Amino acid sequence: MPGKLVLIGCGPGGVDLLTIRAARRIAQADLVLYDRLVDPDVVALAGEGVECRYVGKGCSDGGVQQADINTRLRAALLEGRFVARLKSGDPMVFGRAAEEIAVAAETGAAVEIIPGVTAGLAAASDALITVTERAELQSFVMTTGRAAESDAQPDWASIVKPGVCAAFYMAVAQAWRIQSVLMKAGVPGNAPADWIERAGQADVRTIPTRLDRLALDAKTNTVTNPAILLVRYPMSLAKACDVDVPDLKRAF
Amino acid sequence: MPGKLVLIGCGPGGVDLLTIRAARRIAQADLVLYDRLVDPDVVALAGEGVECRYVGKGCSDGGVQQADINTRLRAALLEGRFVARLKSGDPMVFGRAAEEIAVAAETGAAVEIIPGVTAGLAAASDALITVTERAELQSFVMTTGRAAESDAQPDWASIVKPGVCAAFYMAVAQAWRIQSVLMKAGVPGNAPADWIERAGQADVRTIPTRLDRLALDAKTNTVTNPAILLVRYPMSLAKACDVDVPDLKRAF
Repeated sequence: MPGKLVLIGCGPGGVDLLTIRAARRIAQADLVLYDRLVDPDVVALAGEGVECRYVGKGCSDGGVQQADINTRLRAALLEGRFVARLKSGDPMVFGRAAEEIAVAAETGAAVEIIPGVTAGLAAASDALITVTERAELQSFVMTTGRAAESDAQPDWASIVKPGVCAAFYMAVAQAWRIQSVLMKAGVPGNAPADWIERAGQADVRTIPTRLDRLALDAKTNTVTNPAILLVRYPMSLAKACDVDVPDLKRAF
Repeated sequence: MPGKLVLIGCGPGGVDLLTIRAARRIAQADLVLYDRLVDPDVVALAGEGVECRYVGKGCSDGGVQQADINTRLRAALLEGRFVARLKSGDPMVFGRAAEEIAVAAETGAAVEIIPGVTAGLAAASDALITVTERAELQSFVMTTGRAAESDAQPDWASIVKPGVCAAFYMAVAQAWRIQSVLMKAGVPGNAPADWIERAGQADVRTIPTRLDRLALDAKTNTVTNPAILLVRYPMSLAKACDVDVPDLKRAF
């Protein structure tokens, strides 16, 4: 009898940003594996006596490595268990979900994914920032400030173009790099930006800034993770700075 | 006594993808204004006897225009009412939220925004697609297939670069344009893509396709809105096609 894996997006923290579907599925599982940023009140929704294991990945927090998570997951699914795998935010965004789905597929287990509120959008809500806006912002990008070791950095300069709002995840340590790369690529220094610490939680803190002060304002305000950086490059700002903006309305 | 506006992301449809915070706030409001794609079961969470008004914007569905919504909202807030404004997905993504926040600010009303599960991520969950992936996909973009009349089209070719997964909202009618623009810009025809109809709902339908068959597969399968189009351009595909991929690991 094959097991079942449910990858559950638990939102950015704060049990009330959990979806009703997520809450129900957590209560049904017979094994709960949870990540570092998942709220303890969310884990507490597990059924009475159900095994709940912390598998957060931290250098110094006693967390386990992805290979160990995969091994543990495989064993549980082969035993036919119903595993709820709790991830912060949305499980498909910076969550290593592909590897865990592959493990489940190998064992013949059923897989269900429950989407969640991603931190970048919770941050936008907290800072009252619309990430798309008519005639100004047509696209919203989620990217990371910290690439995997084996990985290339995202090409930030090619991402933050006129008409784009970008959310940088795990960006605090990279504030200076992001600022320099984007300004070198021609994004105006007065492009509006915001740091949002602990998005979605009761003690959220939002710090309005601008591109040419990203690093300074992060330092002055001792911004710490989990934090989201939002950078906006509205069309009107590009035009005011005489940046070449193609007239795409007539391009087709 | 000033009113209160709560903009509420109700997720992509299906009452169980609503957050607990959203459900609580809907029950507290004394006026509910809801959009076209909001599930009737979500509206039904309003308190007994509370006025619930449909303000969906459709050409032919008797919906009202944004200016009328703003007028109605202003009047209610000036009367001191607690208005829950229900939007599908996340309120800050393609939701005209900026205008409604401005109206509330003018009246002196308090404003709260509750983020929701956005359709692009619900679609990814339904299709088992991780929108970021180590070494392959570093950024996720949400963009629109249908720009406002007064608006430029998003610059799709500048958005879908190696390492990017893109979600196109409201894209069915633009399938052929998206396909041609991206292929002309050098995105390989075999880039993996998926149509996801009614993401997050019990009767979701996912249709795997590829860039050079977007329009054909949409037509053959009679894909209809609400639908999300996901297009992925993994790093390995770019390298296999000999597309120039900057080595950003060493670029800083």
